[in-house]
Amino acid sequence: MNSDLAGPDFRLKRVLVPDDLEAVLRQVGTERYHIRHPFHRLMVEGALTRGQMQAWALNRYCYQAVIPRKDAIILSRIEDRTLRIAWRERILDHDGDGTSPGGIERWMRLATGLGLDAEAVASQRLALPATRFSVNAYLTLVEKRTLLEAIASSLTEMFSPEVIGERVSAILQRYPYVNEDTLGYFTPRLTQAPRDVDVALAYVREHARTLEAQQLVVDALITKCEILWTMLDALHFSYVEPALAPPGAFAPGADA
Amino acid sequence: MNSDLAGPDFRLKRVLVPDDLEAVLRQVGTERYHIRHPFHRLMVEGALTRGQMQAWALNRYCYQAVIPRKDAIILSRIEDRTLRIAWRERILDHDGDGTSPGGIERWMRLATGLGLDAEAVASQRLALPATRFSVNAYLTLVEKRTLLEAIASSLTEMFSPEVIGERVSAILQRYPYVNEDTLGYFTPRLTQAPRDVDVALAYVREHARTLEAQQLVVDALITKCEILWTMLDALHFSYVEPALAPPGAFAPGADA
Repeated sequence: MNSDLAGPDFRLKRVLVPDDLEAVLRQVGTERYHIRHPFHRLMVEGALTRGQMQAWALNRYCYQAVIPRKDAIILSRIEDRTLRIAWRERILDHDGDGTSPGGIERWMRLATGLGLDAEAVASQRLALPATRFSVNAYLTLVEKRTLLEAIASSLTEMFSPEVIGERVSAILQRYPYVNEDTLGYFTPRLTQAPRDVDVALAYVREHARTLEAQQLVVDALITKCEILWTMLDALHFSYVEPALAPPGAFAPGADA
Repeated sequence: MNSDLAGPDFRLKRVLVPDDLEAVLRQVGTERYHIRHPFHRLMVEGALTRGQMQAWALNRYCYQAVIPRKDAIILSRIEDRTLRIAWRERILDHDGDGTSPGGIERWMRLATGLGLDAEAVASQRLALPATRFSVNAYLTLVEKRTLLEAIASSLTEMFSPEVIGERVSAILQRYPYVNEDTLGYFTPRLTQAPRDVDVALAYVREHARTLEAQQLVVDALITKCEILWTMLDALHFSYVEPALAPPGAFAPGADA
């Protein structure tokens, strides 16, 4: 990113043309997306135990489970019918259509493939409080900030093909108890995410024309990165180092 | 607590008389209140560095700053005038009255007494995302759950005199750069909290008469304990072990 667009803390220096705004957003991803988080690094290095992988799948399920509700809130705020039609695809992708499974069911297959009990995962009762609070922060963001910010917060999908690519190939290579079928969640995401990004990015490029609106967009994407990052912070703290899971949370090896 | 009242996960076994409900609530405190958190233990042992104390004060400020808004949401949901009059005292305590400082200003004195810059603290821009998400979870709880649960979530104040007592005497003994004036936040809390507890506990004892309502009350108090606990988890992770503060957060020794 050209450093005359924004400072190191992503304060924009002036109103930007759409291409420059997009460049700043991509820089947010480069610096803040959870592909850089130590927990993700451990995962792709093959250094996580089965219990740590279970903790990840079980907690991340809470995030997956809330996505269609998050998108329904956004849908309820969109006045343009064409955009609503495009946005509702996200809900279908995650909830499924009753015949082919959606993202939530596919994530559940990952969780049970790692040896977790489906009912325990679905109940979310063993998830870390920090996971629930992070997920809730996402709902609050799309409910209480402007529609522009709500849409911008989805733009972490610009970066997800890279993290998925790293994750899937590393897991298949380094975690012999996981097979391709268990990772079925990720394959459709590689085509869904870019299609979703096209819609959201076009909206943001068109509607964020003032400095103030552009700063809101950048900050919303930063917040979303913080949500994903904080979820991994909590997993790292609770299950890697110092490995102090809070009372009531999932304990690897125990009943789950 | 008599173990025929609730299971180890605080699932109530039957509808309880008010004294027994209160006993279960106190047991939640015994097991889940943040006085048991390793970060608090390090603090009272005198083991925290000045930078770690600063990180604590700076993050906890975000919690203090939101309390009057939290109580205003509750106030807006109370239909009984007598209860509103009692509850509004909390807002006065924290916001002050323009002459004598309220809890927020007194907490700021603690933060600046530890060497932090008031503007940086007030802006909350160096706070951990996990702190903001935890604080936001408190607002969501009092806004979206029942009034009974919103009121019950305040009952961590039953346990606060003990944590304050430990904290104040330990800090004065073991952190020579902190004096009594800097800790002025805590003294009025020792009388305000029990007064507030009287009001909230009487409400809960009177209004939680069914098993379902009593379980909601217990779960609301657990969630509130999780909010406080998660804030210390994040401090511990970011500044003690493994000391991996997320991008953009307060760095001890750096500009604050």
